[in-house]
Amino acid sequence: MTEAVKPYHHGNLRTALIESGLAALEQNGSGEISLRAIAREVGVSANAAYRHFANKDALLGALAAEGFRRFAARQAEAAQACAGTREMRAATGKAYVAFAQAHPALFRLMFSRLLYLSESEDLKQAASAAFQALLQSSAQQAQAPVGSERALMMALSNWSMVHGLSHLLLDGQLALFGMSAEQLLDGMIGLQDAQRPA
Amino acid sequence: MTEAVKPYHHGNLRTALIESGLAALEQNGSGEISLRAIAREVGVSANAAYRHFANKDALLGALAAEGFRRFAARQAEAAQACAGTREMRAATGKAYVAFAQAHPALFRLMFSRLLYLSESEDLKQAASAAFQALLQSSAQQAQAPVGSERALMMALSNWSMVHGLSHLLLDGQLALFGMSAEQLLDGMIGLQDAQRPA
Repeated sequence: MTEAVKPYHHGNLRTALIESGLAALEQNGSGEISLRAIAREVGVSANAAYRHFANKDALLGALAAEGFRRFAARQAEAAQACAGTREMRAATGKAYVAFAQAHPALFRLMFSRLLYLSESEDLKQAASAAFQALLQSSAQQAQAPVGSERALMMALSNWSMVHGLSHLLLDGQLALFGMSAEQLLDGMIGLQDAQRPA
Repeated sequence: MTEAVKPYHHGNLRTALIESGLAALEQNGSGEISLRAIAREVGVSANAAYRHFANKDALLGALAAEGFRRFAARQAEAAQACAGTREMRAATGKAYVAFAQAHPALFRLMFSRLLYLSESEDLKQAASAAFQALLQSSAQQAQAPVGSERALMMALSNWSMVHGLSHLLLDGQLALFGMSAEQLLDGMIGLQDAQRPA
């Protein structure tokens, strides 16, 4: 125990470990994260931490699940602020890219193969809820039932665009254009909205 | 020197090192690549390899530059096969995703921060040539001059979509839909083509 340990309230150790893990993730990346170091940071023994997360993958899964819940909350806020208007697509797109830029390591973790490989029900449910919200707003935009292929394709098209833009921005590929994420998205969506079939 | 060393023709050692480096990249990822191991694989001393690449970053830059040249060649082939038709966008998009799926580690390297940080003129020129080709075909599609904002936005929109789709596919995010990259792209582009302004 060092002087640097922080207090936590008994009963919310799991929450404290996840908070500390999210901070460590952005600081060091998912490769370098250590459950022991996070336990130390929170001020508990490694054994106490292992009672909540069997191993590093379990911790990463919990961080990704918490990421999906926060992401979905941001998306819902953005959608609600302009529900039913044609600004909704731009607003949720901007919230998507803003999330990636604010939490790059968490964003990469959430959309890594972890999700595909994980057996965590918590993670699967959190990711699925986020996708369902995308599907619902895309169905509205496509004026098609949620279960239709048209709604699915609209959702995947919207997702691909904002996901690609997020990666290109995070990886510095668009730096030379000197435009913000908002300007880029407004330009792209404006162009698509204005396009007529050939 | 072991029995496993492979012959190379004097005068094209740089090419041989790049070929071997591209194979090692896909096998081990960019983090694990070693100039020494590649020299051994080609059958030359580490010193001989260092005469061509000062360090690992120089090798990675050369691999990415070669990646951009091959990528641009695939794009040009795809575009030429249906030049002037409205199939061009789907064809080049499919070639983009196919390249990512065939060379995932090279794809990630090419579009990593390496390009942003590198001072290699070779890499910058190869990447710029690939972007210019995208800009030209997008300008055609947007029926706008190459230097216009409209053409740039079309290029960035097309790029974001295929880049995002490539990442989502590589990271297993779309596995549960059971559709090929081609089916997904056809569905997305078909939907966008059919959409009218609200």
